[in-house]
Amino acid sequence: MAFTFINPDSLGAPRIIKHNLVAPKGKLLFIAGQIAWDQSQKIVSDDFVEQFDRALANVVTVLSAAGGQPEHIVRLVIYVTDKIEYRERTREVGERYRKHLGKHFPAMVLVQVAGLLDDAANVEIEGMAVLPA
Amino acid sequence: MAFTFINPDSLGAPRIIKHNLVAPKGKLLFIAGQIAWDQSQKIVSDDFVEQFDRALANVVTVLSAAGGQPEHIVRLVIYVTDKIEYRERTREVGERYRKHLGKHFPAMVLVQVAGLLDDAANVEIEGMAVLPA
Amino acid sequence: MAFTFINPDSLGAPRIIKHNLVAPKGKLLFIAGQIAWDQSQKIVSDDFVEQFDRALANVVTVLSAAGGQPEHIVRLVIYVTDKIEYRERTREVGERYRKHLGKHFPAMVLVQVAGLLDDAANVEIEGMAVLPA
Repeated sequence: MAFTFINPDSLGAPRIIKHNLVAPKGKLLFIAGQIAWDQSQKIVSDDFVEQFDRALANVVTVLSAAGGQPEHIVRLVIYVTDKIEYRERTREVGERYRKHLGKHFPAMVLVQVAGLLDDAANVEIEGMAVLPA
Repeated sequence: MAFTFINPDSLGAPRIIKHNLVAPKGKLLFIAGQIAWDQSQKIVSDDFVEQFDRALANVVTVLSAAGGQPEHIVRLVIYVTDKIEYRERTREVGERYRKHLGKHFPAMVLVQVAGLLDDAANVEIEGMAVLPA
Repeated sequence: MAFTFINPDSLGAPRIIKHNLVAPKGKLLFIAGQIAWDQSQKIVSDDFVEQFDRALANVVTVLSAAGGQPEHIVRLVIYVTDKIEYRERTREVGERYRKHLGKHFPAMVLVQVAGLLDDAANVEIEGMAVLPA
């Protein structure tokens, strides 16, 4: 099951969140927005990087439960409440990213929203994956 | 046409907006962001719950026109301008939800945005569905 | 490859950003959020309309590189930082839209977010397309 990455030269070298891809036919997995909840649905930490880590871990938990692998993820939307925090800690965020998804970079969007439903959350990650049929 | 819900125990019991699912192959329906417009494209009410009701009704109107049923919806994104209002009226929102979609809970995201295009709108709902091929 | 537009009368005449559609089976193209970057990944202008033009051009660049045509786009999400600017310049935005996508109107969402990752960006556009299999 081969995904085709589409990163035209005219857009410059793809940064982490600027990849595009074509997915072959398959089953679509829709992952609800995940925040840094533990099993008791409490936010695990106030720290942005720790929350990013857990939210992404939760995305992978859903993916795995559906029989998918990180490389099946086609789209991630990252909603943050403080983009400065994200920017200042990009290196750490990148480490946590690779911990969960390796070097697979799907199409991403990152925007700063006015608020997340759980006041204690500072990041929420929604995902889609295309699983082998 | 069976959807498979993916709600791992390690994420705790799925709350309404925390379901995940795998869709079988089918035709994809893309529903533009719906606000509480009536046929003349006027917002029907200032009230959040009434707007939620109408916006979701409009989602279902599109779905039905495409030959779909509520259980074909795979993804909803709910953009609100005031999450406090949403939280304080969750019970009412849930009633209106079930009125239109019954007990079908697709993958959802709810975020508070800085603004919706129509100043009178306080909620906008985008949707995707997978229809039987 | 025929898309079916679903615009029920009861929702009033479809405005540009209020179209809905059903896509036939095909390969899914996921386009990351595009901003008005040039090849050196610098924002091309401070002007909203110029940024909209370039961001949409970048969407089309990805689409073309994947072998797609404007009419294969099924979904666009437009994140802006100033909806007033968008509204006041709707005519110009429409001209730039048609320049890149002609009269094809996929399902769209437009929301005002609290911030985009690049401080110089005032619009970001994410897309999905269904390409002929």
